[in-house]
Amino acid sequence: MRIAVLGGGAMGALYGGYLSRKHEVVIVDVNAALVEKINSEGLVIAEPDGSKAVYHPQAAVNTEGMAPADLIIVFVKAMFSRSALSANRSLIGKDTYILTLQNGSGHERTLMEFCDRAHVVIGTTQHNSAVTGLGEIRHGGSGMTHVGCIEGDAKRLAPIAQALTESGLEADCSENVMKLIWNKMFTNVSASVLTGVLQVPLGYIAKDANAWALCERLVREAVAVAAGEGLDFDVEEKLAEVRAVCEKSPEGITSICADLAKGRRTEVDTISGSVVAASRRNGVPAPTHEAMVALVHAMEGKQS
Amino acid sequence: MRIAVLGGGAMGALYGGYLSRKHEVVIVDVNAALVEKINSEGLVIAEPDGSKAVYHPQAAVNTEGMAPADLIIVFVKAMFSRSALSANRSLIGKDTYILTLQNGSGHERTLMEFCDRAHVVIGTTQHNSAVTGLGEIRHGGSGMTHVGCIEGDAKRLAPIAQALTESGLEADCSENVMKLIWNKMFTNVSASVLTGVLQVPLGYIAKDANAWALCERLVREAVAVAAGEGLDFDVEEKLAEVRAVCEKSPEGITSICADLAKGRRTEVDTISGSVVAASRRNGVPAPTHEAMVALVHAMEGKQS
Repeated sequence: MRIAVLGGGAMGALYGGYLSRKHEVVIVDVNAALVEKINSEGLVIAEPDGSKAVYHPQAAVNTEGMAPADLIIVFVKAMFSRSALSANRSLIGKDTYILTLQNGSGHERTLMEFCDRAHVVIGTTQHNSAVTGLGEIRHGGSGMTHVGCIEGDAKRLAPIAQALTESGLEADCSENVMKLIWNKMFTNVSASVLTGVLQVPLGYIAKDANAWALCERLVREAVAVAAGEGLDFDVEEKLAEVRAVCEKSPEGITSICADLAKGRRTEVDTISGSVVAASRRNGVPAPTHEAMVALVHAMEGKQS
Repeated sequence: MRIAVLGGGAMGALYGGYLSRKHEVVIVDVNAALVEKINSEGLVIAEPDGSKAVYHPQAAVNTEGMAPADLIIVFVKAMFSRSALSANRSLIGKDTYILTLQNGSGHERTLMEFCDRAHVVIGTTQHNSAVTGLGEIRHGGSGMTHVGCIEGDAKRLAPIAQALTESGLEADCSENVMKLIWNKMFTNVSASVLTGVLQVPLGYIAKDANAWALCERLVREAVAVAAGEGLDFDVEEKLAEVRAVCEKSPEGITSICADLAKGRRTEVDTISGSVVAASRRNGVPAPTHEAMVALVHAMEGKQS
C-alpha cells in the first residue's frame, strides 16, 4: 500500500516507521529538520525492552505533485487536522481512505470535508509513544488498533487492518468503533482536563475530595451524553477506571497540564469539546464540560 | 450603645474605630498581638486625604464573662462566622442584635443559629479598607451602609442605623436589603471567581474572549437564580457593570486570586456558593457556579 502519515510526532513516527516495514510510506511534517533527519539517517524507534531499530520511511514537508495515497493516517494535533489535509490535497484521490486514530472524538466531521463518508475511517490505538529526540521516539506500550467506518460494514476495511497487522500493529475492524472511541475518552474528559485547569499531577484528582467530586460529575455527565448518542456505559465502572488511572500515576503530568502551563493550545475542542458537541446534538446537558472547555481556552490565552 | 465587632481586620477595625467615637466598643480578634496593640496604643486609621487619627476602642481575645452587647457586628471571614459567634456567646443576650456586613449572601442562616430571626440584621457597606500594619488600616473609600431585617419592618432598626450614622458611617434601613446584597454580588460571583480559578488579573476577564464568555455565563446564571428568589435584575446592566469593573482595574488582583495563589481558604461558599444554595432552593439551575465552587475548593487544597 501507499500510505501517507500526516504528522511525524510520537505516534505518527511510530506508525510511519512500523508501516514502512511492509509498505511504501511517506511521513509528512511541517518540521523541515525532522524531515531531513528521517530522509538522511532514518527514524529510530526504541522499544520497551531497550532494543532499537532504524526505519526508513520517506519524509516530506511538501507533497505537491505526489500521487494519491491508498491510505492517509492523520496523526497531527487535532486543531491542525484541517490545515494538514488541506495542505496535502494531492495525496487525496477518489479511492483514498483517510484514517484518524487521534484522541477524542468527532474527527470524522473534519475528514468528511476531504473525502466521501465511505472513505472516512475512524479508530483507536492502544499504543503509546514519546519523542526522545529529533527523529527518535520511545515506544511505550503496545495494544490493539481498532478501525471502523461511519457508514456501511466495517469488514470492508479488512485490507487496512491487514496492512497494519502485517507491519506489527495488530488491528481489527470493529462494528462498534464509536463506542471504543468514547470508551477511551472518559479519563481525558474528566481527570485529564481537570489536571490542566487545576495545574496538578494526576494523583491530586483522586486524592483531593473536591477535585474528585468534580471529576465524578464530569464522568457522570459524559456517560449521560454518550447514552444520548446510543452508547451505553456503566458509570460506576468508568469512575473506577478513571480513579485507577489517577492512582496508578500519582505524579503523572498530562499533556494538557503541560500545554496549559506554557500557554500552548490544546486539543480540548476534540476531547471535552466533543462531549459538548454531542450534548448539543442530543440535548443531554453537559454544563460542566462546557465550563471546562471555556476555562481551558481562557487559560490557553494566558501565556506564562 | 455597647457594640462588639467580631474580627479586627480591615473592615472590622474601620467600623470598630469609627463607632468608638460615640459608643462603647470592643473589637474581638484571635490575634493577641493586635489586641495588645489596640489596647496599648490605639488603632490608627489613615484617611483617603492622607490624614490619620488614633481611635481607642477596647480590644479582646476572650470575651468570657463580659455582659451582652446591644449590637454585634460580624466582620470575620465568612468561614469563621460560626466559630467566632460560638466563642463569644457571652456577648449575645436576648436583646442583642447581630449584624453581618460581610461579602456574599446567606450569612443570616449562620446568625440564626445564635439569635432569633427578629434580631438578625443583614446589610451591605460601600466602605473599603486595607490593613497596612499591626493596628493600622487605610480607609480606601466611603459610601452608604444599608441595614435590613429578615422579618418585620426595617424601620425598627433605626437605632442601629442612627448609631452608625452618628459615628461617621452613614447608614439607612432598607426594606429591600436582600436585593442590595445580591446587587453587590454579581462581580464577585463572575469576574472575581474567574480571576481566582484562572489566576489572572481582573483585566484579563474583559480582554480574553473565552474568559469573558464564561464570565457572561456566570452573570446570566446568577441573574436567573436571583429572579428565582424574587429579585429582578437587568442582565445587560449587570454585564456592563461587571465589564466596567474589569476594565477599570486591569491589573487588579482580587483577594480570591491572591488566596488561591497561596493555597489559602477562600470565602467562596458564601459568594458563588450562595448562588448555588439559592439555585438548589428555587430550582433555577446554576451548573457553572457549581463548577466554580468545586474548582475553588480543589485549588484551596493545592498549597503552592
